[in-house]
Amino acid sequence: MARIVMKFGGTSMAGIERIRHVADLVKREADRGNQVAVVVSAMAGETDRLVQLCREAASLYDRREYDVVVASGEQVTSGLLAITLQGMGVNARSYMGWQLPIHTSTAHAAALIDRIDAKVLEKIFGDGGVAVIPGFQGVTEEGHVTTLGRGGSDTSAVAIAAAVKADRCDIYTDVDGVYTTDPRIVPRARKLPIVTYEEMLELASVGAKVLQTRSVGLAMRENMPIQVLSSFDDRPGTMVVGDDAIEDKTMERQLITGIAYDKNEARITLTELPDRPGTVAAIFTPLAEANVNVDMIVQSTPRAGERADLTFTVPKAALAHTTDVLEKIKDEIGYQDMLANTNVCKVSVVGVGMRTNAGVAAQMFQALAARGINILAITTSEIKVTVLIDEEYTELAVRVLHTAYGLDAEEDAAE
Amino acid sequence: MARIVMKFGGTSMAGIERIRHVADLVKREADRGNQVAVVVSAMAGETDRLVQLCREAASLYDRREYDVVVASGEQVTSGLLAITLQGMGVNARSYMGWQLPIHTSTAHAAALIDRIDAKVLEKIFGDGGVAVIPGFQGVTEEGHVTTLGRGGSDTSAVAIAAAVKADRCDIYTDVDGVYTTDPRIVPRARKLPIVTYEEMLELASVGAKVLQTRSVGLAMRENMPIQVLSSFDDRPGTMVVGDDAIEDKTMERQLITGIAYDKNEARITLTELPDRPGTVAAIFTPLAEANVNVDMIVQSTPRAGERADLTFTVPKAALAHTTDVLEKIKDEIGYQDMLANTNVCKVSVVGVGMRTNAGVAAQMFQALAARGINILAITTSEIKVTVLIDEEYTELAVRVLHTAYGLDAEEDAAE
Repeated sequence: MARIVMKFGGTSMAGIERIRHVADLVKREADRGNQVAVVVSAMAGETDRLVQLCREAASLYDRREYDVVVASGEQVTSGLLAITLQGMGVNARSYMGWQLPIHTSTAHAAALIDRIDAKVLEKIFGDGGVAVIPGFQGVTEEGHVTTLGRGGSDTSAVAIAAAVKADRCDIYTDVDGVYTTDPRIVPRARKLPIVTYEEMLELASVGAKVLQTRSVGLAMRENMPIQVLSSFDDRPGTMVVGDDAIEDKTMERQLITGIAYDKNEARITLTELPDRPGTVAAIFTPLAEANVNVDMIVQSTPRAGERADLTFTVPKAALAHTTDVLEKIKDEIGYQDMLANTNVCKVSVVGVGMRTNAGVAAQMFQALAARGINILAITTSEIKVTVLIDEEYTELAVRVLHTAYGLDAEEDAAE
Repeated sequence: MARIVMKFGGTSMAGIERIRHVADLVKREADRGNQVAVVVSAMAGETDRLVQLCREAASLYDRREYDVVVASGEQVTSGLLAITLQGMGVNARSYMGWQLPIHTSTAHAAALIDRIDAKVLEKIFGDGGVAVIPGFQGVTEEGHVTTLGRGGSDTSAVAIAAAVKADRCDIYTDVDGVYTTDPRIVPRARKLPIVTYEEMLELASVGAKVLQTRSVGLAMRENMPIQVLSSFDDRPGTMVVGDDAIEDKTMERQLITGIAYDKNEARITLTELPDRPGTVAAIFTPLAEANVNVDMIVQSTPRAGERADLTFTVPKAALAHTTDVLEKIKDEIGYQDMLANTNVCKVSVVGVGMRTNAGVAAQMFQALAARGINILAITTSEIKVTVLIDEEYTELAVRVLHTAYGLDAEEDAAE
């Protein structure tokens, strides 16, 4: 017998027919003698519809009332799944965030989970029942409804799994696992049987949005194994686990887990910066204050008597805001020109194996150079190397690297 | 300064534009220095949509989970109205049934309000705030969401008004008041400035569904004045008050308040019943057990040696169910034939004035007889006379009676 938290996203909950299929999957786990709690999202499109209503009601809407409105989407699917499970003879009941309760901070629309009382859930498990819990929502100590921010249901599921010390958290989504890269670009991409939390975080940070980043961070802290799998097929998915849970560290595991890319960054270059202490701080401090998330940063090393250039990336959505801020401090900083370019892409190779293997970055640069792909910037972490390239080379770069690191499947995996 | 509970139905809440209009009406009352609490229904059509989802999920759905699902409709409109009011500078907040709380019985999908804690509302009034409260929903002592049954928001509003000792409860709907009869049938029908609770109950029981019957009964018990008015025009509506609140009892007030009709009943006749004690009880006891709501009952008085017929009415929706029950007990009862007829209509004259005036019923029978309208059955209460007639005479009968009791407006009221 295992204790499992199952989480189903909006696509899996979109309509009664799909909810019935979800109920089949839940019943199967319960029939195996497992203790099951289910976390559900709102029907696909419903949260967008509710957010839109709030925006129409007032352009600067109160986030407390926004939470009341948007939390209703998961309330509906929770009740419907409980009804459907009961119709199949499963002893199921729904429990809203305020009923369990799932205590959160008061940061409405972006609340953090403080603690989940496991008493109610332990009692349900003891009675052989299945608890159906709306994701995305919680309640403050004062009894106000909160939501966790978009995509928060993954985090709800992991937090509940941690609270009840579940054996694992199964996250059902519309993809069937984590791949070595985007199968739309590389048909020979392979589904990974297992990745570490850190790899998952690095893959997510560079565009592979299978799980909400926050939920992976929480799972890592709580050491809660996650399984990513599809509700639409029956094959095993990808396990996301701690480093220590991967037994075979050297033999079968690839050096590199995957290749990710992210087209959502823009590049900004400030030319001919004065060579005096504090210049870089004078640029990034006002950007931080303006909530601009700066990613890659490269400063050219000037020759004697010349001035340096500074290049960095920001999310495309923040580009206009960023150039506004930089325009205002131009005289103070004393740069010559500001160049902005949105036709760039970040490509990353990720793998815990590179910790113990030198030469991963060198191999990447060689492979790209051999195809004439120019590298505009580089950043590295312990388990990731990221390069910024011209956007038009994205697909070529991903394919070249996927082959270079031996990730191509024997046969076409897109069967 | 007055303390007012304002209630808005589904048509008034259907979409942001209409919610903005509702917010205008609320702001106007608040700007006058009144203390205001607002009770809202779900958007028109939303509760039907949610009920349908529950039915699709399982034909015999759990009413506890049904309540969780359908209560979401009012949750959404409450939050949206609060957001809209805030956008207009009104200090508004929403409070769900479980937050106030509105304590109800555990009869899910048809819960009764036990008590409403006025403390939270008193504090809001004291702070100059406007509380927005979802109608139709409450919470059990154990913390489970309940709903009051369809149309329950009127009852929520009256119960909240009673709890906070409001000066009146304004119920905004898609008609602008209570009329002497259906203006679609009688263009010279008049809007009544004032009716008593008992008249309203009798009018409702025979088809004039302006207010939920339960809400009128509650208002009568609590002696809470209700105003029925339209959110789409600005004229005063109809006050629904206690007998004692009507000052001028004899002069200006009409003998008869209104003429109502109801086409939702079916007639059943059982012929040649054996003349022995207990026969009637043997018929109506199983019908009561089957939850069939029997209304008019007429037993023919047989001549010596003959057997009696029994005629009664049931809701059309319950006809098939009723004939099933009666078919099963045919041998036990010993009736000859069962005749069912759905082409009947109940027409009623209602007015507290008839208490002190004999001859109201006689005048009714004469007016109908003069037009050749046959009366199939008669029932009376202290302030109502109801006849059952062939459905095809409905409009004629209503017009004849409206004129006979002097209810026609001087000019055409359908301006």
